[in-house]
Amino acid sequence: MSLTEQLLTTLDAGRDAAVARLVEWLRIPSISAQPDHAADCVRAAEWVRDQLLELGFTASLRQTPRHPVVVAHHPGPGGGGKPHLLYYGHYDVQPPDPLELWASPPFEPVLTEGPNGPRVVARGAVDDKGQVLMWIEALRAWHQVAGGPPCAITAVIEGEEEIGSPNLAPFMAANADELRADVAIISDTGMWDIDTPALSTRLRGLCFVQLDIKAASRDLHSGMYGGSALNPNNLITKILGDLHDANGRVRLPGFYDGVPELSPELRAQWQALGFSEHDFLGAIGLSVPVGEKDRGPLERLWARPTADINGIWGGYTGPGSKTVIPSEAHAKITFRLVPGQHHERVFEAFRQFVQARLPADATATFQGGGASPGIEVPADSSFVQAARAALADEYGRPAAMIGCGGSIPVVSSMQEVLGLDTVLMGFGLEDDQVHSPNEKFDLRCFHQGARSHARLLAKLG
Amino acid sequence: MSLTEQLLTTLDAGRDAAVARLVEWLRIPSISAQPDHAADCVRAAEWVRDQLLELGFTASLRQTPRHPVVVAHHPGPGGGGKPHLLYYGHYDVQPPDPLELWASPPFEPVLTEGPNGPRVVARGAVDDKGQVLMWIEALRAWHQVAGGPPCAITAVIEGEEEIGSPNLAPFMAANADELRADVAIISDTGMWDIDTPALSTRLRGLCFVQLDIKAASRDLHSGMYGGSALNPNNLITKILGDLHDANGRVRLPGFYDGVPELSPELRAQWQALGFSEHDFLGAIGLSVPVGEKDRGPLERLWARPTADINGIWGGYTGPGSKTVIPSEAHAKITFRLVPGQHHERVFEAFRQFVQARLPADATATFQGGGASPGIEVPADSSFVQAARAALADEYGRPAAMIGCGGSIPVVSSMQEVLGLDTVLMGFGLEDDQVHSPNEKFDLRCFHQGARSHARLLAKLG
Repeated sequence: MSLTEQLLTTLDAGRDAAVARLVEWLRIPSISAQPDHAADCVRAAEWVRDQLLELGFTASLRQTPRHPVVVAHHPGPGGGGKPHLLYYGHYDVQPPDPLELWASPPFEPVLTEGPNGPRVVARGAVDDKGQVLMWIEALRAWHQVAGGPPCAITAVIEGEEEIGSPNLAPFMAANADELRADVAIISDTGMWDIDTPALSTRLRGLCFVQLDIKAASRDLHSGMYGGSALNPNNLITKILGDLHDANGRVRLPGFYDGVPELSPELRAQWQALGFSEHDFLGAIGLSVPVGEKDRGPLERLWARPTADINGIWGGYTGPGSKTVIPSEAHAKITFRLVPGQHHERVFEAFRQFVQARLPADATATFQGGGASPGIEVPADSSFVQAARAALADEYGRPAAMIGCGGSIPVVSSMQEVLGLDTVLMGFGLEDDQVHSPNEKFDLRCFHQGARSHARLLAKLG
Repeated sequence: MSLTEQLLTTLDAGRDAAVARLVEWLRIPSISAQPDHAADCVRAAEWVRDQLLELGFTASLRQTPRHPVVVAHHPGPGGGGKPHLLYYGHYDVQPPDPLELWASPPFEPVLTEGPNGPRVVARGAVDDKGQVLMWIEALRAWHQVAGGPPCAITAVIEGEEEIGSPNLAPFMAANADELRADVAIISDTGMWDIDTPALSTRLRGLCFVQLDIKAASRDLHSGMYGGSALNPNNLITKILGDLHDANGRVRLPGFYDGVPELSPELRAQWQALGFSEHDFLGAIGLSVPVGEKDRGPLERLWARPTADINGIWGGYTGPGSKTVIPSEAHAKITFRLVPGQHHERVFEAFRQFVQARLPADATATFQGGGASPGIEVPADSSFVQAARAALADEYGRPAAMIGCGGSIPVVSSMQEVLGLDTVLMGFGLEDDQVHSPNEKFDLRCFHQGARSHARLLAKLG
């Protein structure tokens, strides 16, 4: 039996144990955005550190101003000519709210049956604990079959990805020597469908802004002051309601400067994927796409920038009515960016856009919080080619070279701070409910992901 | 010593005891909008019932579908030719939030020093417990000096004014015989300033709507779906941002139909009041009026309809960022109405306004919750004239005949259900922070209000 066959047999035999480990990790509510879960973030970090210690890695928690980073190393068998791989993932998760929409508690994982067989339902199931554990299980198989990985491995697992990784780039810069490697490998993206693996070569970036508008020095009675006093709720809807024009284009000055047109090749390749936006939207109860009217579906999702209000609040939101003119109104806005845009310029353009619409009596403050450029990964590197081969072996068909509408800030940090290209080999599905209630991960994806990672190590080692 | 002098002397002597009673009532958090305070509403009702029982009234709590109504009667001395007076007030209060802006807990009344001497700070101090207790203290003085009021008195004190009095009109209709009287007297409005008493002859009405917009069947990742999926937060700002035109006019179709122009007399009278909108807005940290550009300050506040978003919320509003496209967005909107407008038509116009701007994938629901027409009180009735005389005696200057931007739905119910005109003799001041943190009532207003009510009873009896 070949080495690869032994690895795959070992993974198949250990399948249930791997799921049990995933469930254990998912029980820890490591919500990075919420300060009262800081201790849970440490517990989640310690849990994954211990997994890597079991596999012969040196591993430890590194302090940051907020949540720790887990760093682990394995020297591999030594001997030249083999690449040094840097695996990255994150142990933190999104806030689970709205809680009432979960069929089971978000941090009490349950196994349920889906159209593709069993799945695990919990916050973080696929984003990103499940996908991190895939490559850890592959390393476990190598540990059992060959005593260790076939080449030198560094693992970096952070706890601030869901809040924009504010401390990761500084940490990587401060530890650049220790983190030196030849390529980064990340599983935090998706497949094309459950039968078609994918490598993501294109990611949208992100610029987050919280807008806080203040007017009167106190809340006011809407009867006594209505018709004279500025209402920040009225104002914020007036300003943000102006963010898109009738064709779905974002109105910020210069927003589209530097946004490249798709190459004919890429356009053709994406068309060949036969993406049905009707089905894509139908799955979430929608039928009519928004966004730029003159652009194609995958282009709008993968290659065009957007503006979305993630949260808005102001005044009385409790039961019943309260006839108040509030003194403040607030919104959280995310701009999705593509290569060629600069988040600093988008932030500034938004600031100017709001200021230009702000009456004398209102003040606006702008808090950033996580930003990253859109990026493209070279599709022709030897590492990407190795990943394509590993996926083709596992799935019996070529991997789709796709884009991803979401941002993975670390990918640009890998490039800018460590000079590394990144292989984005992800196993999520469109219906995984990422960032939503009832997030899930199909166990078939989890298992084939681990097998694919074991194969990739065989090709690179 | 004349009867009136005895009444005033008695009120002066009992001043501290009256304040102590007010403080006791203010300690009861009778927040009608919040179901978990239902028992407190009953306690507040029982408290005021007991006050009236002490004064020789028959008094009891009457059940309604939500909060009880206190009804009390005193036959007076009997004998013909004297009017039967119906006093109205409310024991319920607005929600106190935002709590963090209160200098002292809202339901732990404190006496502080203000520019006009001592004041009591608590939710409900002036709206309306303090103002109800003024006429009860006047009745107490009559009880002590003359053994009872000089004419037949009915008192109605409800517990749902702050939520739009949903059950009061039905209650009055069901008990019209018992509540028969010649005029209604209400203290729930304001003075012109602390030296200038006022009678409010004009009130704006109100139409409340909660708008709930739903789109996708679940919350979505703004990276994976941004550019394709409808965002209800984006949509609600687009729709509500369209509510006012560049001149501050409300864009609802037909909104201004039937809105009367001011008579030259009233316009002249209001101009003579020398209202400074600069000072009015300056007191709350503002300087530039909003509302219809081509209308005067008091006209905008007293005689023109408005639209204000009292509350708006959707998506993630917690700490940090969450890159979500929510499935729902919500807003609470109040339209202030003037005589000639119909709240049913305004509600329907708003519904059409929203529906006309709603894309195929979004659904909107519209919940009403309290509505009342704007009204005008005849300024020449014998009762209004008696009130003017009582106020002139107390303050040594004529009362201003003013408007009020707020609505008192009961005034129209008095007219429509019981056929009664209403005398609106209020003693609040502009800086009382009604519906806001640190609501207060100046004790000088409280005391002179009680004296004015005692004088009014003398004139009417």
